[in-house]
Formats: sequence, structure tokens, C-alpha cells
Amino acid sequence: MKLKLKKEDLNKGLQAVHRIAQLSNTELHTQSGFLIKAVSEHIEFQANGFDMAIRIHVPGIIEEKGEAYIANPYLTELTRRLPGDEIEMIKQNGDTQLLLKGGKLKFECLTINPDDFSEVDVVNSGQVQFTTDSITLKDLIEHTAFACSTDTVRPIFSGTYLDVSGTTINMVATDTHRLAYKSASLEKPVDQPFKAVIPSRLLAEISRHLPTDIPEMVDIILLRNSLAVTFTNVYMKTRLIEGEFPDYHRVIPSQFSCVATVNRQEFTNAVERASLIAKDAGYNVIDFMVTNESINMTSQNPDYGTIADSVPCQAIGDPLHIALNGKLLLDLLKHCEADDVVLKLGENKPVLVQNKDDNNCLFVVTPMRTK
Amino acid sequence: MKLKLKKEDLNKGLQAVHRIAQLSNTELHTQSGFLIKAVSEHIEFQANGFDMAIRIHVPGIIEEKGEAYIANPYLTELTRRLPGDEIEMIKQNGDTQLLLKGGKLKFECLTINPDDFSEVDVVNSGQVQFTTDSITLKDLIEHTAFACSTDTVRPIFSGTYLDVSGTTINMVATDTHRLAYKSASLEKPVDQPFKAVIPSRLLAEISRHLPTDIPEMVDIILLRNSLAVTFTNVYMKTRLIEGEFPDYHRVIPSQFSCVATVNRQEFTNAVERASLIAKDAGYNVIDFMVTNESINMTSQNPDYGTIADSVPCQAIGDPLHIALNGKLLLDLLKHCEADDVVLKLGENKPVLVQNKDDNNCLFVVTPMRTK
Repeated sequence: MKLKLKKEDLNKGLQAVHRIAQLSNTELHTQSGFLIKAVSEHIEFQANGFDMAIRIHVPGIIEEKGEAYIANPYLTELTRRLPGDEIEMIKQNGDTQLLLKGGKLKFECLTINPDDFSEVDVVNSGQVQFTTDSITLKDLIEHTAFACSTDTVRPIFSGTYLDVSGTTINMVATDTHRLAYKSASLEKPVDQPFKAVIPSRLLAEISRHLPTDIPEMVDIILLRNSLAVTFTNVYMKTRLIEGEFPDYHRVIPSQFSCVATVNRQEFTNAVERASLIAKDAGYNVIDFMVTNESINMTSQNPDYGTIADSVPCQAIGDPLHIALNGKLLLDLLKHCEADDVVLKLGENKPVLVQNKDDNNCLFVVTPMRTK
Repeated sequence: MKLKLKKEDLNKGLQAVHRIAQLSNTELHTQSGFLIKAVSEHIEFQANGFDMAIRIHVPGIIEEKGEAYIANPYLTELTRRLPGDEIEMIKQNGDTQLLLKGGKLKFECLTINPDDFSEVDVVNSGQVQFTTDSITLKDLIEHTAFACSTDTVRPIFSGTYLDVSGTTINMVATDTHRLAYKSASLEKPVDQPFKAVIPSRLLAEISRHLPTDIPEMVDIILLRNSLAVTFTNVYMKTRLIEGEFPDYHRVIPSQFSCVATVNRQEFTNAVERASLIAKDAGYNVIDFMVTNESINMTSQNPDYGTIADSVPCQAIGDPLHIALNGKLLLDLLKHCEADDVVLKLGENKPVLVQNKDDNNCLFVVTPMRTK
């Protein structure tokens, strides 16, 4: 194998496979590697783990075809720091060393027999498939996946629910205390509705790779126990979580006795302050009193004292008192973007939080019981 | 007590005492607090620990004199986030609560009986005293203290040596594998020479507070077992480490068989790259071959391979081969600033590293024995 690449292209490939090799495998040394393959017109990088797999190709000059299987956690970092912009990679036939040259640096990198690498299968068709664009998909993921549970006891809640039917794509994640929902439209309807639960950390990894400068086409294929995503120069595959995701329509409240509109930044700042002393006292409880003109909040800590604060709001309905976990509320507010957010409330009922004038993205937080 | 302060002034005071209360005490809750005292024209903050103490005063309006002893680790963070620029602090006589008001926020902060706080003694004279300026002192500290040992077995090496005589002030720190030395001049000579070893982490804390916009006068007073530093609005005191610091003059080499001048950034980058794979293999050994035109280096790792790299240099003397610990060398190079650094070498002898044309700041690193 003899290759010439731009440093930034080599970096792109290495970074992508490096993260997935690390994410997927932490035990066996020989499994945490990746394959560099130059047999067609592209230089391809592959990492294949239990959870997730990736193929990514980058431009470069292939002077001699070949492949190399490398398990070196420092190669990405080294490549990032290489002098010079043109990198050469040379591996003689039958040799176990890959020579990497940049500027005056020469790295004789040890490699593994490429026959030991199990290549990433590419599937071109599955049970269901549809097309969306990279910006829409990234937006869906980033507004939902964060709300999943990090608890491994109930795996279903560590995933993000993908619910597609007709021209509607919904994503939902919940840790049972809070829920995030986002909806978008497809240009072409799917043949049949489908549902899948994708591990949120793997979905976040897909999101990292989605281009957002301009919307690129993303093909999504659902297989029996995995999901494949193809866009630009990347092919990624993730396993699915088995089990039944709870009916999220039942969790999102629809009847309210009080609806309050409040400046997002002002409200977030006040909740952050109130949460400062509350977080050290059990469940980070903040008491909210919503009146027609203001949201008044108090938090207390037996060791430090009591904070009372207030932000102006416009509310319709009955004044209402409710206790919420400050951290959960802040997590949701962080994923709102509008100048104003709307809180929709009912006595002892889950609270709906959303950007003003946007019903495609909804957040729900369960109230806390107080004395 | 009734005070009105600008938020930034309150922050300055709180941040200073907060860090020292935390640095000095980690166990007893009641000891990790600080005192706010408003009895003269200034508002003063005090923290008093076993290791280190601070008094800092900030401007503000004292409408009613008084004091408050507070042990609340979140107060600094809360104050930083307060709405509004004008902060009010009110404590009724005999009350245990301090009311803190900013914007619409009210914090009823619990306090401790101020009689339980042992105030920081201010000493105005000691065995020896001298005056320098804040920029010179900060420069001395930042070029030496880092090189101390983090090992607590031999406490003397966890400190930085202060060696003052005539109009010369020297600071030295070493962990026995590397040494950092910096020298500066005093305007007025000291009455008698003196030596002291100051815990490096406390010295670094003093350095944080030293103003560097313009040189401010710093008074330093040496007591039997502590050192007091006074500048602008701050008074700080630190304990000293007992014991004899080794004779650093003997450690700094003075005879060399080879002197090489090299571009600092190019050399640092190359050492960083070579260190990447070496750090995972035992002692981070990098082999250097210094010739008249270049410094060639190699590093290896049995799992990953071998790196060979080279940077141009101008050398006088005999070509020389030496093995150094990459991390130790990088630590020293990070504290050089000149475009070019000079390496002064002898066969199997400690290596002297310094900025070109600067003999006031010297770094030494001990070579490694290789097969």
C-alpha cells in the first residue's frame, strides 16, 4: 500500500474511526483497532464494534493499493500534530509495519494482520427505508437524546425512540422524570410505519458526523436489530434496543389550568441561582408560585439558608403552586432556543415546557411531591 | 451590619477568601468559612487556615458597621450570578441571618457566631523584610514553583526555595529529576541574607492575586515559621516548610561539551510528538542525538512502533547522544518564552535548558540511563 493524503483528510478519517473503536470496545486490545483500506478510488477507514460500526472515505492519492489494520490509540493525536500538510503512508507487501511520513517525522507503526479485521457490512435495503436531510436529523437528535436515562437497569430508557409513519418522524427520549419530544416532516411518506429504540449515546455519535453547513441527504434503513445511516462520505450502523417503549402520547399533558410565558434567559438564570443551594439538599427542589404577573421561586438548604427570587411573566388561568427538580428543569430549558418559553401547568400534573409558537418540540417534567 | 457593594467588588473579596478557605481546610465544616468585617472605612474579607491566611479589603458603602462569619461554599457562585450590579448585605444585631439582596433575589444566608472566627494576625515586622514589585515576584514564582515534587514523602521538595542576599533574590524548585531556577534583583539590599522554603501550592495562590497590569509594591516579611506578603488591598500569610533545601548551585552544571541552539516551538512540537507513544512505555524515554546541524530524536513503544524525527539546530562542540524523560523536558520547555532555546550538554550529565541570552532563568533535567 502506498498513499498520499492531505493531513486534514487523514485526520477526518482517523478521528471518526478512533471514537467508534473506543466507544464500542474497551476490553480486548486487538478489537479496538480500525482498518485503512485503499482498494478502489477512495481511501476508506473502518471501525467495527459490537454496538456500532462506521465506514468513512476521504480523498487521497492511491499509488499502490492495500490495507492496514491498526490498533494504536495515539495515532489520531500524532497525526493531528504532524509537521507538513502532505502525509505519506507506505506498507510493503507482507510487512507488519506501516511507515507514516510527515515533514521530517517517520513513524514505523505496528499493524495487525488485516484478515483478522471483520469488515463492516453495508446493507442497501431493509424492512423500511426513508430519506431525510442532515440538518433535520441532527435537530431531532439534539433536542431529544439528552433526556434519556443513564441508568442501565432499564435499557429501554437509555435509548431514543424513533417513531415514523406517513410523512411524520417523531423522536422521544425520557428517563421517566422528564421527557423530550420532537417532530419533523418527511418529503416522501414511508411505505409502512415503524418504531425503533436507538441507544442515545450512539445516536449522539451519529449526530456528531452529520454535516450542518448545508443540508445533505441522509438515507436511513431499518433492519431487524440495527439501523443504518448513509450520508456524504459516511456509512454508520448502530444496534437497536429491544423492548417496548412506553406510549409517550399519554405522558405529554394536554389540559392545563395555567399557561405562563416567560423570558427564557431571565427564567433560566433565576432557576440556576435557586438551584445552587438546592442541589446540595436532597432532590434539588425549587418551589414555584405562578401568578398572573410573575413566577416566584424559593429554594432552601438547611445548612445555608433560603433563596427567594422572581421573574415577570404573562400568565393566563389560575395562580398555581408547584415544586420541580431544578436540574431537570434546567436541562430542558437549555434545549430551548426561543426568546420566550411557555410553561403549561396543572395542579400536581406534569409541566409542559416549550419554545413560544413551536408545537414540534415539547418537553415535560414531572412535579415533585412536597409536604 | 448594612453594606452596599458593587457586584464585582463583592466577587473579588469572596473569590479570594473562598479559595483559601477551601485550600486550607477540607474537614471541619465550621472551619472552612470566612469573615466579612466592616468596622473601618473598608469592607474586609478574611479566611484563616492552618496553612495560609488572607485579608482582602474592597470598596463599598458601610451604612452600619458589623461582621458576619459565613461557611457557604456556594456563595461565591451565587454572587457571580446575581442580577443587578448593586448588592446589599444586611444583618440585624443578634440575628444569625445575613440578608443578601441583588435585583429581585433575596438570600437569607445562615451565619455562624463571628466570635468563633479566629482573625488573621497582621504582622508589620519580622526577622527580615524586603520590598519587590508584583510583576517581578509573579515572574519568579511562575518560572520555578511548577518544578517542585508532588510527592509528600519528602516535604522539602514540595516547596519552593527563596534565597535572598544583598540585592539578589533567587527562587528554586526541584523534584530531584529536574530543577528550575530564577533570579532577580532588589532595589534595596536586605539587612541580612535569608532562606526559606514555601509550600509551592501556596506560593501559586499568592501568585494568582499579584496584580500584573502595572507593577505594584510588594512587602515581604519573614517570620520564624511563616512568610507574610502585603500588596495593594491584600495581606497573605503562609506557613514555611522546615528542613534544609539542598545546595542548588551544585546541581546546576557549568561545564559542557556541546551547546545547541534550537527554535523553541519546533523543538517543543517534535518532543511532544515523540513523547506521544513513549509516555505509554515506562519512563517516557526519548533518545536525542545532537549533531552540528540537527537534533535527531527517536522514541519507541513495543506495542505501537518507533518514531524518528529531527529539527535543525546550531551546535558548537562534539556530537552527543543522551536519553531524557519527554514529560520532564516538555514541562521545562513550556516555561521558556524566547524564540530560541539553548541546550547545554555533557556526556551523561544533567542538561541545562534556557532561553537564549537569558542567564537569570535556568532549567535542569537529569538524563536517563539506557542500556
